[in-house]
Parts: sequence; C-alpha cells; structure tokens
Amino acid sequence: MVTRGGRRRVTIADVASRAQVSTTAVSKVLRDAYGVSPAMKERVRAAIEELGYRPHAAARAMRGRTFTVGVMLPHLRNPFFADIVDGLTDELSGTGYQAILVQGGSTQKAEKAAMDALVDRQVDGILLVAPLLARARLEEVARQVPVVVLGRHERSPHFDAVFDDDETGAELVVNHLIELGHRRIAHITHQDNSTARPGDLLHVIRADTYRRVMREHGLEDEIAVATTYYSEEGGYDGAQELLRRPSRPTAIFAGADQAAFGVLAAAHDAGLSVPGDLSVAGYDNTKLAALPNISLTSIDQPGVVMGGTAGRLLRERIEGRTTAVRFSVGPSLIVRRSTAAPADLPEA
Amino acid sequence: MVTRGGRRRVTIADVASRAQVSTTAVSKVLRDAYGVSPAMKERVRAAIEELGYRPHAAARAMRGRTFTVGVMLPHLRNPFFADIVDGLTDELSGTGYQAILVQGGSTQKAEKAAMDALVDRQVDGILLVAPLLARARLEEVARQVPVVVLGRHERSPHFDAVFDDDETGAELVVNHLIELGHRRIAHITHQDNSTARPGDLLHVIRADTYRRVMREHGLEDEIAVATTYYSEEGGYDGAQELLRRPSRPTAIFAGADQAAFGVLAAAHDAGLSVPGDLSVAGYDNTKLAALPNISLTSIDQPGVVMGGTAGRLLRERIEGRTTAVRFSVGPSLIVRRSTAAPADLPEA
Repeated sequence: MVTRGGRRRVTIADVASRAQVSTTAVSKVLRDAYGVSPAMKERVRAAIEELGYRPHAAARAMRGRTFTVGVMLPHLRNPFFADIVDGLTDELSGTGYQAILVQGGSTQKAEKAAMDALVDRQVDGILLVAPLLARARLEEVARQVPVVVLGRHERSPHFDAVFDDDETGAELVVNHLIELGHRRIAHITHQDNSTARPGDLLHVIRADTYRRVMREHGLEDEIAVATTYYSEEGGYDGAQELLRRPSRPTAIFAGADQAAFGVLAAAHDAGLSVPGDLSVAGYDNTKLAALPNISLTSIDQPGVVMGGTAGRLLRERIEGRTTAVRFSVGPSLIVRRSTAAPADLPEA
Repeated sequence: MVTRGGRRRVTIADVASRAQVSTTAVSKVLRDAYGVSPAMKERVRAAIEELGYRPHAAARAMRGRTFTVGVMLPHLRNPFFADIVDGLTDELSGTGYQAILVQGGSTQKAEKAAMDALVDRQVDGILLVAPLLARARLEEVARQVPVVVLGRHERSPHFDAVFDDDETGAELVVNHLIELGHRRIAHITHQDNSTARPGDLLHVIRADTYRRVMREHGLEDEIAVATTYYSEEGGYDGAQELLRRPSRPTAIFAGADQAAFGVLAAAHDAGLSVPGDLSVAGYDNTKLAALPNISLTSIDQPGVVMGGTAGRLLRERIEGRTTAVRFSVGPSLIVRRSTAAPADLPEA
C-alpha cells in the first residue's frame, strides 16, 4: 500500500475494491484499453470520483519526489504576497526544492482548476494562500498531497495553518483611532464568493472585530461598513459610498493597504485632506505604505516570516509529519501620518 | 522521429547515435537499470548533456499535451508583471490551458533552475519575461518547447519576441523634460548580471536612448546616470547618489515606476518638493503611478495587450507555427503632476 507520512493514500486496489472489479480492470480503464465494457468504465470512473483517486499521484509515488512545491496565490497585485513567496523561497533555497505558482483567481471554479493543475504537475506539497474553497475541498487536496493554508484560521486535522492574529490587528487599528478622538469610524471589507466558514476568513474576522470594538466603546450607532474588495478600486468605491453618507466618517479603516490606497485617492478626489479631514488606516504594512507621499498607518504582518514558516511546515509534512500544526504571528501597529485627531476635536 | 511543429526534437536515437551505443543501452542508462558499465553510463550521459536531450520531453510527446503553459517572471513586485499575467490568463481562458508561474530571481543560476522546473513539469509552452540568460541558452529551451520572450529585443529564429518600443518610450520622457526647460536631467538605470547582448535589454536601450537624446540637444555635459536597480530601494539609493552631486539634477528619469517611487521618497527625505525642486518621471504607468498622492509622469506600455499577445503566439507555436514572430507595441507618455518646469527658469 502506498502511504505518505503515515497518511493513507487512495490506491488502485481501493478503487478496484470499491468498484468490485479486479485491479487489472481498473488499470485497463485508466489506460483506456480495448475490451472494456461501457458499464465497467462507468463503475470504475464512479469509484475513482468517489475516492478522489488520481493516477498521477500514484505515478509520482512510484517515481519518488519531484522536489517542487506549488503555491496558489489569489492574484499577483498584493505586495504582501510577494513577501510570502520571498520567505518561502529563502526557506527552500539550498534544499533542491523549486516553487511553482498558480493564480487562483476570484472564482471557486478558477481556484479549483489552479489547484488541480498543481496536483497534476506532481508537486510534493502545496501552499494555499487565502483560498476561497470550503474546508472539505481543501482537505480533499490535503489527502493527496501535503498542504499548508496561509491566511485562514480553521482547524483541520489534515493540513497546517499559518495566519496572522487578525483579531488583535483589527483591535489595534480601531483602538488607535478611538484614542485619537474619532467616533465616526467606518470600515471597508472584502466580498468574495468563498464557501469557507465565515469565522475562518481573515476579512470577516477584521470586520467583526471592528464591530465588536466599536460596540465596546458605546459606538454601535456609528458602525458603518462598506463591502467592496481588498483592491485599489474596491477602496475607492467603498470610500465614495461612505463619504456620501449623511454623517460622514472622520476615519476609515480599510481591511487591506491596497484598499486604503484607493481610499486616499477618493479622499483627494473629494477635496478632503488626509489626515486633516479624514484619517485613513490600512492593514499589511506593504512597502508602499511607508513611501513618504503615502505614509499610511497600517498593521504589520511579517509576510516573510509567514512564508518561511509555511515552507518549513511543508517540508516537515513531506518528510512524514502527519499531526496538524497551527502557527499564528502577532501583528503590530505602525502609526504614520495618515492618522491624526479629528479636526473638530477641541484642543487639549 | 518525434517532432513538434516541424522543428526537430532530440530523440533517444540521436543520443544513441552520438554515444555510439544502441537505443536499448540509452534507455537502460535512463532507467538506471542493472548491468550498465560506468563507462557506458558516462558516454550516454555526455551525449545527453551535449544534445540537450530531456527524457521528460519525450515522455510528454508520448502522452500528448499537458495543457499547461509556464511563465517565468523575474519577481512578483512589479505590478506591470501582474498586467502581463492578466492578459495571458484572459487569452487562455476557455482554451483549457492553465498558466503556472515560477520566479526567475536575480541570478542566472536561479533563472536556469526556474526554467528547468518548467520544462520538467512538461509545460506545452513557456513565456519568459525579461530573462537574464544569453540568447543561446534561451534557444536551447526553445528547441525543447515553444518559447515566447517578453521584454527583450533580440531576433532569434527559434522563439517569438514581444516587446515595447523602449527607444521611443525613453525619447518621449527625455524630450518632455527638455521641453519643460530642464537641462540637468539625470537617469537611473538597472544593473543585472545578464549575459544577453546589451542592445537586447530594455534597461540598456532606455539608458542609451537617454544619453543619445541628451547629446542631440547639446546636453552631453549634463549626462548623469546612477546604476542601481529597478526597485524602490534602487530608486532611493540612485536618487541619493545623484542629489549629492555638485550640480544637482532638476529632473530624474527613472527607468521604471518602482524606482521612481524610491526617487520620490529620497526627494522627500532630502527636503525637496516634487515637482517644485525636482521633477520625477518613471516608466510602465503602473496603477500606483495614477494615485493622486503619487501622480507620477510615466510611459504607458499596454501590459495586458502584451501578455495576451504572448499567449496567442504561444498557442500558435504549440499548434505548429515554426517561423519566428516579433511583436512590438507603441508606448505613450502620460504626463502627471510629478513633472513641471524647473523652479529657476525665468517665467515666459
């Protein structure tokens, strides 16, 4: 029986047993050989589908490792993802492992195709960055190949999780704005079509924490959330929506720096000065947030450390570890010039 | 004989003939089978090395296409690369092709490993974005699998080239600055360890064009080039070096937006206002250049069009085209608030 790290992999014998046919028959169906009845084909294919058997995985096991790890990123536009890949690449350098990347895209269908492409390319392990698919689907992949998930919070016995403590990070931002004297603090969150449990998604945690901290300070009536996207366009649209509201916010906490850049653009186009008329804060502490012209208050998540840790956990799993590990990093608040006390606050 | 699109691929028979052994002997060496003498192994391996034979390529040919195209990017930090990948992905959508990406890195050794990883993953075609390796090495890859090179200007009978007319782009920027009244115009270029012919590299073309246009306007004594990197840090360091010179430039043309962002930061830290004390221009017209706080004058290269064209050319090669194609796009100047007449210019 082929096993990887003690975790049992679906074999051709399992397929034969489920389909109640011989292993020779299964292998004939796989080869599309002559003399297989349509009914037999149907039965074997149903068993393959049911068990999640992949001929390539078996071929890989026979040939040994490919010394490749696959990385799925939602897209290539967030510099935070580049930090993650740099950390992973550093960790893998000198080990003979090469990282190959796929773009997961914005739909579950595209994400599934991207993940399948990695499995079919016979990678030895997969790092999934902020995937959309439900935990059960990630676990199906994790049964075929070692998996580490970065940026989601769930507990699974089948894969490792690396994430930032998003609750603490969001608390730091909202408390900072409240301490500056802001009450009308709005939030921009991200809309995806994920089927994950909402509480496992980083943007849901950030938005829920914003609401909780606002309530804890008696500011429940000031809660204002725009649901757009963690992108420049999303931030721009979200800010436009929030700034049109009758009681205009004096501060906007965007759930990601990319969105905060869009908020800065919208403020400029609305003739509002930052931080004079509007304080703006982001999340991720991307390199651009530190540019003097931007100088964006943000939450630092150590992306390089997270990517490096993900690489180490993947290698441990490839070497045989089967118990699941969860690794959480602590975020920190970086205060820059985009946040200040609201203009209408009486001077102390 | 296995051929792809009329271009002859190295076969096991070629290896046998070169090594002066039987094809059975070659296949034994490949399988590491019992009963092969060390001398025989040595001879066959030398022939494999010499001819560039790859067992995987043959295996692919037997199995047919993998419906995967490989993309090599130098790194993930330039948003222009994301435009290229978006164009490619759009072009491939609905065709069944999936793109997998590798990071080429900053050394030729890392780039070679990344390219080999793509070939070993049995991709049907490869898009190389701004590679470092010499043309001969790219052609070796192109003999195994269809290749399109984006961002280099060379003519090769073995691969297609997609590039922006960097000479026209650089001319547009330097002429714009001269027309504004600048004379002390400096340039920041990129240092790599490429073994390509310098005239085929985009950053060399941009720098050479800067020098030529300066000379054509009688400004040869004002030529000042800082050689750092097309990155934020590179732009910062290059600007610091240029701004320390006795005759401080009144305008800096950075060869890439990423470097121009670093110039903006260095100007701020030196207490210089943009464009009051210093005009700054970039190249690539990345999304961030358009942010109101940045508002960077830049050269627009249609990255999405270039990536889409590269995808189409790859598919044509996979379908059998063997004549080489060169596709050049025309750049355009986008003037924003980071460039203006120099302060010491008498008003008209």
